[in-house]
Amino acid sequence: MAVYDLGGKNKYYTLYARIRDDILSGRYVCGEKLPSKRVFASELGVSVVTVQLAYEQLLAEGYISSRERSGYFVEKIDLRPVGGAAPASFGAPDGPKEQYVLDFVKGSAPAELFPFSVWAKLMRGVLLDCGEHLLERVPCAGDAALREEISKYLYRSRGIRVGADRIVIGAGAEYLYGVIVQLLGRDRLYAVENPGYGKIFSAYALNGASVVPVKVTEHGVSLEELKKSGADVLHISPAHQFPTGVVTPATSRSAIIGWAEERGGFVVEDDYDSEFRLSGKPINSLYGLCPERVIYVNTFSKSLAPSMRLGYMVLPGELMKRYLSLFSAGANVVPLFEQKTLAAMLGGGYFERHIARLKNYYRQIRALTVEILKKLNTDCEIYDAGGGPHLLCKFPQAPSDEAVKEEFASRGVRVKCLSDYLLAAAEGMEKTAVINYSGVTAEQIDAVRNRL
Amino acid sequence: MAVYDLGGKNKYYTLYARIRDDILSGRYVCGEKLPSKRVFASELGVSVVTVQLAYEQLLAEGYISSRERSGYFVEKIDLRPVGGAAPASFGAPDGPKEQYVLDFVKGSAPAELFPFSVWAKLMRGVLLDCGEHLLERVPCAGDAALREEISKYLYRSRGIRVGADRIVIGAGAEYLYGVIVQLLGRDRLYAVENPGYGKIFSAYALNGASVVPVKVTEHGVSLEELKKSGADVLHISPAHQFPTGVVTPATSRSAIIGWAEERGGFVVEDDYDSEFRLSGKPINSLYGLCPERVIYVNTFSKSLAPSMRLGYMVLPGELMKRYLSLFSAGANVVPLFEQKTLAAMLGGGYFERHIARLKNYYRQIRALTVEILKKLNTDCEIYDAGGGPHLLCKFPQAPSDEAVKEEFASRGVRVKCLSDYLLAAAEGMEKTAVINYSGVTAEQIDAVRNRL
Repeated sequence: MAVYDLGGKNKYYTLYARIRDDILSGRYVCGEKLPSKRVFASELGVSVVTVQLAYEQLLAEGYISSRERSGYFVEKIDLRPVGGAAPASFGAPDGPKEQYVLDFVKGSAPAELFPFSVWAKLMRGVLLDCGEHLLERVPCAGDAALREEISKYLYRSRGIRVGADRIVIGAGAEYLYGVIVQLLGRDRLYAVENPGYGKIFSAYALNGASVVPVKVTEHGVSLEELKKSGADVLHISPAHQFPTGVVTPATSRSAIIGWAEERGGFVVEDDYDSEFRLSGKPINSLYGLCPERVIYVNTFSKSLAPSMRLGYMVLPGELMKRYLSLFSAGANVVPLFEQKTLAAMLGGGYFERHIARLKNYYRQIRALTVEILKKLNTDCEIYDAGGGPHLLCKFPQAPSDEAVKEEFASRGVRVKCLSDYLLAAAEGMEKTAVINYSGVTAEQIDAVRNRL
Repeated sequence: MAVYDLGGKNKYYTLYARIRDDILSGRYVCGEKLPSKRVFASELGVSVVTVQLAYEQLLAEGYISSRERSGYFVEKIDLRPVGGAAPASFGAPDGPKEQYVLDFVKGSAPAELFPFSVWAKLMRGVLLDCGEHLLERVPCAGDAALREEISKYLYRSRGIRVGADRIVIGAGAEYLYGVIVQLLGRDRLYAVENPGYGKIFSAYALNGASVVPVKVTEHGVSLEELKKSGADVLHISPAHQFPTGVVTPATSRSAIIGWAEERGGFVVEDDYDSEFRLSGKPINSLYGLCPERVIYVNTFSKSLAPSMRLGYMVLPGELMKRYLSLFSAGANVVPLFEQKTLAAMLGGGYFERHIARLKNYYRQIRALTVEILKKLNTDCEIYDAGGGPHLLCKFPQAPSDEAVKEEFASRGVRVKCLSDYLLAAAEGMEKTAVINYSGVTAEQIDAVRNRL
């Protein structure tokens, strides 16, 4: 067992970095079992939680994998030789996707549905209208016209009343999480949803924050675990959690706000796919409940184009003041050109028409997806709260999660299970496939049907 | 019609601000038609473009609206009070700049010199050529074509031989400093130059790193202080330091590399204004001396347009591996559109022609600047190592730094002193004005000469 000296604060991060480096340098080899959390913790003289967080970080970044009831194992790391090496794999989707007919894991909105001709027309218009004005420095919080359009859009789409002067434009949601850490500080503990996006966990951890996963129940994030964790900041998606699909009910919402007020903490409301609510009434924002304790974050990367990293956040007054005092000497990182074009897209109603079109499309794909799931296995139970383009499919009779994935794979279908998104062990997540249908086409579903 | 006195440079901004204030104060009322651009321009004795830019700014910020073929009208302004703070100053240049005829503190390349028509043409070409390809996710390190062009440009301009696979594109230099902290970790101590840019110090500190200022001597950063500080990472501009203008001599360069190798540390070579070397032979890069210990950083924000946050860094092989392992699941933050346009600009030779034009311009401005400085005070000593658009001007007989600034101010000239850029106390920095002439015009210098 490697012996590490973990001085200073942020022990888990130091431990994570040491193990990661040892994996990269080959000191740990592929397939090797890591020491159990308990043994390692006592060896290093740290708490089990420290080791657990380090393992979770390594897990989230794919350095290790976890096998149920047997522990953690070093993964095969693809060390691309740099300096003379072909960069051919840059940006290639990970994994051998080709072998699948249908991929329910990765996916973004189909490019054909993006109104490219409108976008190009707006871009040409911006070039003509703004001219050399496009060269000017953009104020730190973003272009005034875009912030104004987002303010109006938030009212139209989410019923959120907030002035443009509380809105900050950034280069995508993950960029904004980094800004949030800079605003709130690294001495706070950040809680993220478990299961959840490993990317969110990593974004906070990479920015030097301590992160703790908190279990998501059918009522949203567990308040009991949250309180026990000692967290000061809670990052959640109350309108539609990924991957569980849970919509946080009203009573839990009030309780979460109560927690934030009592604790002097903040809630980061990640509203990333609220545009895509396909059925049922719209879910209110947490922000509306308590604008002084909630940071509202959303992005256009998912709804427009993955190449356009453009997100925004709404800050409580106190934090907006801090933001301006920290950053007003600098310029905004998103090019003015994209900001002006998006402002024109929002102002002209093109964005909402695009979303309406996407929603219609997703409703069709959802119906086909449900149909094929039932054909594949009549015993499956489908859970769909009507939110964004993913749903859950449980196989109570399946022997294990691996068996679920293997059965799908044998039909040419790629899925992950809820347990694949676990950042820490949690019960009640077994035998449930996460079906993200945002990137599949009717033709692909047909191809699978024809094989049955 | 309101009559405004639009002294100083940035006439359009002054005009915009005056009209905005008149709208906010009610002097212009909602629905009122503004004078036509042509009439207003002749009334004020400015160009039509000045009025147009002011109107566009007002339009962008929602103070006025335009109706086709009828003109510009004052909008209803909703004055949202936010937490007591006035948001009116968002993005406004700081300080009472108006009172100065000549500003040697702030400044960026004059917008007139930017080849906007070429840029716009390239943008339209990219839109046509790439089409919907522009919507695709950009690999974390950036667009392959742009990285390839930067690789070639680095060889042409700096003699740096490095493959595109070592180059990482980011949203400006400060964004990249944050990535560097994520790569190297927060348990290292970062040294920055003293005096130096407060922004660099802040960027590291905001990213959670511990930062220590190390004194710059005439031989570059003090190796003695550096070693004493215990730093692991050194951020320097060896080709031309701001504000001292010091060019790090060869012996110091070797010593710095020796320090990095011995310590297992890294040097961040900030080459931000190496393009603007106006006289003397080019300065070699540190990167060339030791590609495994030097991170080379440069930006296009200064040489192209402040609204375009686009920088890049060259990483040692070991760090590139770490970069890919940490970030390859995410997308690059700079829109593909800007990356493709810049690639076309570099590939077509337009960028280097633009730099050549700027250098010619700066040589003229430098000559006029030196002339006026000598006229203002015959006892001044001018230090200019031939680098980027700034120089030092020492007044040995002046009683104090304040006296130096006051004397300049009395002639309508804004300067800062070396001591204003000190991050920690250091000797030998007295009575020396820092003359940044990147943003001044020949007309402004004339205006000061005419007052003498």
